[in-house]
Amino acid sequence: MAKRKVIYGGACSLDGFFAGKDGAIDWIRFSKDVEDIMRKSWAATDTILLGRRTYEFALAAGGGGEMPGVTINKSYVFSRTLTSVTGKDTELVTGDAGEFVRKLKAQPGKDIVVMSGGNFATSLLQAGVIDEIGLNIHPVLLGGGVPAFLTQEKRVKLELIECRPLQGDCVFVNYRVKQESRRI
Amino acid sequence: MAKRKVIYGGACSLDGFFAGKDGAIDWIRFSKDVEDIMRKSWAATDTILLGRRTYEFALAAGGGGEMPGVTINKSYVFSRTLTSVTGKDTELVTGDAGEFVRKLKAQPGKDIVVMSGGNFATSLLQAGVIDEIGLNIHPVLLGGGVPAFLTQEKRVKLELIECRPLQGDCVFVNYRVKQESRRI
Repeated sequence: MAKRKVIYGGACSLDGFFAGKDGAIDWIRFSKDVEDIMRKSWAATDTILLGRRTYEFALAAGGGGEMPGVTINKSYVFSRTLTSVTGKDTELVTGDAGEFVRKLKAQPGKDIVVMSGGNFATSLLQAGVIDEIGLNIHPVLLGGGVPAFLTQEKRVKLELIECRPLQGDCVFVNYRVKQESRRI
Repeated sequence: MAKRKVIYGGACSLDGFFAGKDGAIDWIRFSKDVEDIMRKSWAATDTILLGRRTYEFALAAGGGGEMPGVTINKSYVFSRTLTSVTGKDTELVTGDAGEFVRKLKAQPGKDIVVMSGGNFATSLLQAGVIDEIGLNIHPVLLGGGVPAFLTQEKRVKLELIECRPLQGDCVFVNYRVKQESRRI
């Protein structure tokens, strides 16, 4: 069985924001192309990792409803401040995120999707546990909002897996993260 | 004769930096693909707009040497602090950059290339005088450095002209800026 991968990404603006000011996502374009990519991605996924802010955003938006055709066995919410989380098969992780994800990857299972802004994802990138980054770059400069990547110490080297235009002037780019000496 | 365009862009990292920390550009990959794009771009260009920091960086690096096959009639350096500039056919502009570039575009000539970081370019974007954005997205997260885009008030809408992979795992994206009501 192929090693389970940890995948980070989402729809972003050309200037690298997942959401605009005040969390605006009205600029995101849905299309048949996007539907195809998401269907394939979710079919290969059984675990979700949520940053604290994304978890709270999802809760406020009505919580994690069932997605058709998607079977998520487990969701993990990472936070040093929360004391409990709600949601089916959802668990709070308060310890070292990199260490936790490294152990998770060693267990059998399907792929693991990171749902977060740059804050949580950057800590996972620096810990060397993210395997792929997929972005759907939208034709807009938002000028501010929730960044996909934050300032970080170490450079992260990538390999291009795929790049193609999508409907609605979007560009899909998919990268493999080169783990260098940090490969697990 | 086609209207002369103002073009902004360059090689950047996936997290949107033109240069890494301490101005590092050792990550930039040169290839036949890049050479082809640059040759066509420079052949259509006769004017360069330089932000103050880029001008000083170029001066420190030995100044603007002649580029083979490139004929630049005029370079403009934009600064509110400098009192003079050096260089062949180089002029200092201390007034409103947007207004100056708007007038420049109304004069006959070839395309105009903006060579700057996000600081100067963002002011031109907000003034509505940039027509195209071309980026050669490199397979690396630099984690910090000279950003291609800064925080800005107004969203800037784009139309994808072209997107294709280049040698060395790079991705070329070229956009038309939608000027909305600000079209000149």
